[in-house]
Amino acid sequence: MLKEFLQFNEKEVSEKIENFIKEKVEEFKRDGVVLGISGGIDSTVCAYLCKRALGKDKVFGLLLPEKDTPRKSLEDAKFVAKNLGIKYKVENLTRVIKDYGVYNLIKIPALTKTMRANIVKAAFNFYYKKTSKNPFSAAILGIKKDTPYYSYLRKVTAYMRIKHRARAVAWYKYAEINNLLVVGCCNKTEDMVGWFVKYGDSACDISPIGSLYKTQVWQLAKYLKVPERIVSKTPTPDMLPGIVDEFAIGFSYKLIDLVLVGLEKGIDENIIAKECLIDLDKINYIKELKKKSIHMRELPPQPIF
Amino acid sequence: MLKEFLQFNEKEVSEKIENFIKEKVEEFKRDGVVLGISGGIDSTVCAYLCKRALGKDKVFGLLLPEKDTPRKSLEDAKFVAKNLGIKYKVENLTRVIKDYGVYNLIKIPALTKTMRANIVKAAFNFYYKKTSKNPFSAAILGIKKDTPYYSYLRKVTAYMRIKHRARAVAWYKYAEINNLLVVGCCNKTEDMVGWFVKYGDSACDISPIGSLYKTQVWQLAKYLKVPERIVSKTPTPDMLPGIVDEFAIGFSYKLIDLVLVGLEKGIDENIIAKECLIDLDKINYIKELKKKSIHMRELPPQPIF
Repeated sequence: MLKEFLQFNEKEVSEKIENFIKEKVEEFKRDGVVLGISGGIDSTVCAYLCKRALGKDKVFGLLLPEKDTPRKSLEDAKFVAKNLGIKYKVENLTRVIKDYGVYNLIKIPALTKTMRANIVKAAFNFYYKKTSKNPFSAAILGIKKDTPYYSYLRKVTAYMRIKHRARAVAWYKYAEINNLLVVGCCNKTEDMVGWFVKYGDSACDISPIGSLYKTQVWQLAKYLKVPERIVSKTPTPDMLPGIVDEFAIGFSYKLIDLVLVGLEKGIDENIIAKECLIDLDKINYIKELKKKSIHMRELPPQPIF
Repeated sequence: MLKEFLQFNEKEVSEKIENFIKEKVEEFKRDGVVLGISGGIDSTVCAYLCKRALGKDKVFGLLLPEKDTPRKSLEDAKFVAKNLGIKYKVENLTRVIKDYGVYNLIKIPALTKTMRANIVKAAFNFYYKKTSKNPFSAAILGIKKDTPYYSYLRKVTAYMRIKHRARAVAWYKYAEINNLLVVGCCNKTEDMVGWFVKYGDSACDISPIGSLYKTQVWQLAKYLKVPERIVSKTPTPDMLPGIVDEFAIGFSYKLIDLVLVGLEKGIDENIIAKECLIDLDKINYIKELKKKSIHMRELPPQPIF
């Protein structure tokens, strides 16, 4: 039953998004759009929609790798931009991030040479092993000071998140110089569980796929004829080499989307649990992520007089 | 009459803000707050309120100068931090901003040596002279492509705004490493006319003085016994050396607050104009700034299906 809630007409939705992009560019009086292209499914689908809406000459791609970016991601991002025929620019952010002193944040003396080669993955696994918590959910759910490796987790969090914020700065610089709208590429699943960086990848002027769950983005990608090479990739957060979304969040997108859409539609949690073949604990975990990430989806609170 | 709308009980408002800060730190399970201290009135008032709410040991100041920051600003910021007895850190952002290629954006061959010494001020005045528009309102209100020095204005905008965004990245890095809330220091006047940087100085977890007009911030500063040296300073945007707020916005804060509060309370525009001794054109200009900056005060739009 839950599956039905996620069904949609690809043609209709694609047209609505394209019209939305066109209207916003006119409303804001801009000469086009800029978006970060990571080589992942979300930014690729956004780039395809932007090209359909505005034509290839009004879409600009920024490819912003840094020290930890796998070469394969950059290659995929170039492939997407070339495939679409849009203008793109590669800007390496390693120096910016280095200047912020971020790469030196994580040092584990006991790391082997192989572990060092992929230090963040090692750090993630290290924390996971020691605490049996994953850094992502711990960072969202809040961490008590007596958690082992508390300060370590904090550093891993800062290490990860600065990358998306440094990218947002680059998007806006480029947008301001060229009079463009910044297109955000977050989807509804990420949005609901806090799987994004506040003022990082969520920073944008318009959010074309913000109303689509991740599994719907995949469905739309097929309709848009996004090459299989991109559609079949395992989603990663583009900040932790070796760490994939579904491991960090703790669920497959297929499962999490069913739970989220069930909760959205007010379905009884026991029914959701039964249909998803999971126990209520897991639903509560997702509800908790949703609740604790509310502040990331709202404007900053002010006192009211 | 309009003046009366701006009156408030300083003790009551101060207490409400302090309680708000305390509650939010508990709600978010943080160990304190971090805020950027510029040496201006807004961040100083916020720092004073945070200290009153949490005690000096839970308030951390970040002083983030860059190449264009006047030495006096940094000295004032240090004076505030020392005066409060809070921990603070100076982090120079020149290298970060340089790495983004921003300092090279503005080049006017005809600049004299003296003008070069203060290049952004020169750029501002240059544009102003050529177009009789000021870059701030032009950037908010939208610029037609046939405006003289169009691309020049775009670059000046990017040059100015990146500084606040680079600071926000530093605040969050520090906050994440030390489990702190990021305190924003924008006031209601700036908020209403768009005199802030989207995802820059407005990026924060809580906004303690976001409900206070600028002239109310001054009033509160006196109640909090902020040193005269800070209260009497001419407000500047902390990104354009030599450019002060009131010149860039085009009105004194005293005037703009009366107009804004009049519009907020639904007072007839003719009455506002009469009481402020200005003509309706100026009220329309403020209304236009308010309208065109709406997107800066809202979450990014998404298409709705």
